[in-house]
Formats: sequence, C-alpha cells, structure tokens
Amino acid sequence: MIIPIDLGEKSYEIILERGAAKKAGRLLGIDESRKVLIVTDSGVPREHLDAVACSFKRKSIFVFPEGEQSKNFDTYREICETLMKLSFTRKDAVVAVGGGVTGDMAGFAAATYMRGIDFYNIPTTLLSQVDSSIGGKTAIDLGRIKNIIGAFHQPKRVIIDPDVLTTLPERHLRNGLAEALKAGIIMDKELFEIFERGEAEEKIDEVIERSLRVKKRVVEEDEKETGLRKVLNFGHTVGHGIEASVPFGELYHGECVALGMIPMCGEAIRGRVVSALEKTGLPVSYPFDREKVRQAVCHDKKSVEQGVTAVFSDEIGSFVFKDTTIDELMKLI
Amino acid sequence: MIIPIDLGEKSYEIILERGAAKKAGRLLGIDESRKVLIVTDSGVPREHLDAVACSFKRKSIFVFPEGEQSKNFDTYREICETLMKLSFTRKDAVVAVGGGVTGDMAGFAAATYMRGIDFYNIPTTLLSQVDSSIGGKTAIDLGRIKNIIGAFHQPKRVIIDPDVLTTLPERHLRNGLAEALKAGIIMDKELFEIFERGEAEEKIDEVIERSLRVKKRVVEEDEKETGLRKVLNFGHTVGHGIEASVPFGELYHGECVALGMIPMCGEAIRGRVVSALEKTGLPVSYPFDREKVRQAVCHDKKSVEQGVTAVFSDEIGSFVFKDTTIDELMKLI
Repeated sequence: MIIPIDLGEKSYEIILERGAAKKAGRLLGIDESRKVLIVTDSGVPREHLDAVACSFKRKSIFVFPEGEQSKNFDTYREICETLMKLSFTRKDAVVAVGGGVTGDMAGFAAATYMRGIDFYNIPTTLLSQVDSSIGGKTAIDLGRIKNIIGAFHQPKRVIIDPDVLTTLPERHLRNGLAEALKAGIIMDKELFEIFERGEAEEKIDEVIERSLRVKKRVVEEDEKETGLRKVLNFGHTVGHGIEASVPFGELYHGECVALGMIPMCGEAIRGRVVSALEKTGLPVSYPFDREKVRQAVCHDKKSVEQGVTAVFSDEIGSFVFKDTTIDELMKLI
Repeated sequence: MIIPIDLGEKSYEIILERGAAKKAGRLLGIDESRKVLIVTDSGVPREHLDAVACSFKRKSIFVFPEGEQSKNFDTYREICETLMKLSFTRKDAVVAVGGGVTGDMAGFAAATYMRGIDFYNIPTTLLSQVDSSIGGKTAIDLGRIKNIIGAFHQPKRVIIDPDVLTTLPERHLRNGLAEALKAGIIMDKELFEIFERGEAEEKIDEVIERSLRVKKRVVEEDEKETGLRKVLNFGHTVGHGIEASVPFGELYHGECVALGMIPMCGEAIRGRVVSALEKTGLPVSYPFDREKVRQAVCHDKKSVEQGVTAVFSDEIGSFVFKDTTIDELMKLI
C-alpha cells in the first residue's frame, strides 16, 4: 500500500508493505549512479540490516551504539565526517535503518550535509513506524534536552515493513503502541476502539496504517509545527517531564507518553483511556518525583516562560488546545 | 534605502543606510518581549559592537576568536549551548555582527536551534556586505572543506551600514571588492566600469548597492542553488582550489577569487579584467603549487567525480555555463 504525503514540492510516499525492507534499493528508486550511506544502530538485528544492505549497489554502512545517549553532537559529527571522507556529493543519499534515534540523527546529517542531500527512512521499530519516520522532523539532543537541535527535512520516501517487528522485544512493541493509542484518542475513534478491545497487537497492520493516516492529515496541514501539529504533543508535555525526571532509560518514551496522556483526558473518557492502556500493557501509574517532573516540564522546549498551550481530549477522537500554566498542569497529575 | 528580497513566505528586506548599525534594535523591529543573542567575533571593533548592542533591550553577547579556523563544530556547538542555557525559545532571535564567518555560523545555529529561530544579520566587512549576508546560505567548515555542513535559512532582515567599513583594514576592503568585481563581470557592466576607472573605493555605496542588486536577482530566481545561483561561483572553483593549496590564511578569500576569475574570462575581456583587478589592488598572479591546486579542486564540494560545470565570461556583464573537466580547467590556469 502506498500512502502519499502531500507537501507540494516536498511530497513523498510511504510504502507500507510486508517484506518491503529486503527490496528497499528498488522500492526507493535509487539507481547505481548514486552512493548511499546506510546509517544504523547496534540494536538493529543483523538479519534486517543485511537484507536491506544487500538491495543497494553502492553502499557504505555507519553503525553507532543503540540508545538515546548516542543521539548527540559527537555521533552527528561522525556521520558528517563519514559522508565527507566518502566524497558524497549532493546527488548521493543517506538511508536510515533503525528506530527514532537513528532516523532523527541520520535525517539531521542529511539535512545539513552540503545544506541538504536526499534522505530515505526504513524504520524498524513500531514507535518510529507509526510516528517519527514521517513528518520531516530531524534532530539531536544537547545535554538532557531532547531534539533541541535539528531541522525540518522531509524524507524522499519511507518504507514501513511490519515484518521487521517480529524481532522487536515486547516492551519495545508496547512503546510504539502508546503513540498509536495517542493518535486514536485525539483523531481516530475506530483506532482507539481497537485498543479498547485489546486487539492492537493482532491488528498491527491496521494500527500502523491508521496511525500513519492521522499523522498524514496533521503534517500536511502544518508541516513546520506552527499550529495544528502541536496536537501530536498530546501527552508529551507531562510525558517529557516524567521522562527527564527518572534515571536515564528507566522508562521508555511511549511509557512516559502513556502516563502523560492520563491527566490530559477529561473525566468522561479517562476511565476508558486507562483501561485501554492496561489492555495494551502500558503503565497507568508510576512513583515519580513530582518536583523533578515540574522542573523538567519548565525546562522543556515546548514550554514558554509564563505558560504552555497544552492539548486535552474530552471525547475520544477529538482534541482541544487550552492555554494553561505549569501549576495548573501539575495539579492534574 | 530598502532593497526587498522577494522569496515568497521567506521574503525580507535589506536596509542599506549609513549610520543604521547603531539603530539596529529599532530597524530590525525586535520588541522587548524577545531575547536576542548577539553573535560576534573578536575582530569586530568594540565601538561598532557597543553601538549595536546598546540598541537592544534583552541581549546577551557571544564572542568567538576571529578567523576561518573558528568556523567549526566546536564553536557552533558552543553557540547552541549558549542559546539553551539562556532558555531561548522559538520566539527569540540570533543577531550576527561581523564578517562572513560570523554570519554563516550564527545563521547555522539559528537555522538548527529548535529547528529554526529568527536570524538577523549586520555584516561589518565589505565581503559580507556585498555577498554572504544575503541569500540564506549558512554553514560551518569540517576539516579543510569549507561550508560542507549547513542549511538554507533566510535572515528576517539585514542591515548594511557602510559607515562601519571605515575601521576596516585596506586589505580586507579589497577582499570584499573582489566579490563586487565578480558581480560586475558576470551581470553588471556599469559596476565593472567603476572598477575599470579605479573608482571602486570612492564610489563604495554604489558598488555595494549594485552588488546587492545582482545577488538579489540571482537569489530570487534560484534560492537553493539548483541552477542559476551557481553563476555566483564565477572564479570560485579555481579560487577555492588556490585557497586550499596555500598555507591557511596566506591569501584572503577575495584574493583567491581574483586569481580564480582570470582563467574563466575569454580572451576578449581578460586584459580588461586584469587591469581592473590591478587598479583595485588585487593580485593577478601568485606562485601557487599547481598540483596542490588540482588536488584541492578535485576535493572541492562543487566538483563531481567526472567533471564540473564552470562559469565563464566572454563579454563583460554576461556569463555562460560550460561543462568541463578538471584537466581542461587546469590547462587554463
């Protein structure tokens, strides 16, 4: 299935197809005259990487240690230096094979090498398949602030192959389901109901497709996050705060978003959301330090000095923006 | 005088006015609610920096050691860290006060901090006033490759104040005149004739304005250098090669461009160009190492593996693109 993302000159296609990864070279339409740097991380199973790599003719591979702690200036610089040493020109390309960290960082290197070369993304985690692999946000972290340095650089094409998820640990899978559930709460009632019936894993292809269609609608309307796109931050203001308040890596991003969504739901739906989270195996409570969360929310890049515009949902499949203060937000937690 | 640069949503104005620098805060229209980071280098005379800085309410100043060797990942990262420590948000801004190195690097930090915040430029060298301060090219160097990492990020407004040139050393002034002369050769016969009559310094305001109008025409037609904009590389393919072949800093950029333009001129005009260069105090010959120049040209980012598209001029005020090889180019030198 092809899902087109319509962004004028920057339009591109998402190819959602089981078994697509091993045909990547052909599906991405990269001919033999172009060099490709495959950027990947040590967490990507060898079988997936080999299958993708074999489909390209003129490729080199850059591997970095998996995990958020690699998403920094040093790794970004190493990718740039590798492109330079391999004499990449503006007609060559970067292909990311991995999760959100890999796509974000490889995308940023592609966005800035020679002021932008082509970028292709083959996300291998559910989280990146349903969320970060489309929309053109690329970034690295600086200190403990996530995604503070980056660029908008749309991929030329994205391949989403649910087959690669078979090797994904269960907790990673649930991590991705949290973002899909988010998409359901704010914009797709039927998607939410799949979770409510506890069928998310068995209907994974439909969950991915529906999540992508939500993201497509939002990104097409607001590419650069000046308005509507902020809706995708549903659960993230508090979620990022929780993520920054616990020891590095103790909670996954999706688990923090799960916890962060609960206070943003109106009373009429909160019970249903908690139940859907539980059926998905996601946390609904956690012994975090309220003061640390508060400080982290204040530092978060999405907050301005005085207050924040937060996303709330009072009815499944809909959302509302409300200006609020950090204090009011903390009361809800 | 206001010169508008028409780039659709990214349009902006150049304010060309003597005495404008000390009114920068007001002329840039930055109100008190916004924080400003002034990025400058140690080579900018204190009097200019103070005059500019005093015109802003909520400012911080970042100073780095002057010179191309500062235009690297480390300084770029320090600027980003400074923005982060000062809790800059998307509504705040970066203002560059300095030459091309300063504008390029401050612009790249602004382009990538939070995926892009507003950038304003107050160039203080003639080279940056007539060339690099407009057009939206931002960049840093990596190794010895200039501008290999960067982004297109148009400024929100540019202030060009010829008064600040009074403190500029003579050699720096001629460095900038080389780029203005380039603009004349390829697209403005009357501008070239000012040089031919040896009147460039005395008619500096007109030289700046005419150079800006050439650049305006080119940038408006081809913002991202996919076609016409390559004309601005006239003299740069060989020039960059010479620049990279001599000890760091021995020749200025404009001096290398001066040397690099000569072989690109047809026989009918070469004599006139050499004469104009001499009248401007720019070099017309230099004992460089041909083999080193050749290697540097091959490594230059503008060359592809097989050949290069180079810009030639056979008649003052006009140009022509020709596909050539490195070997043919070397024969001309």
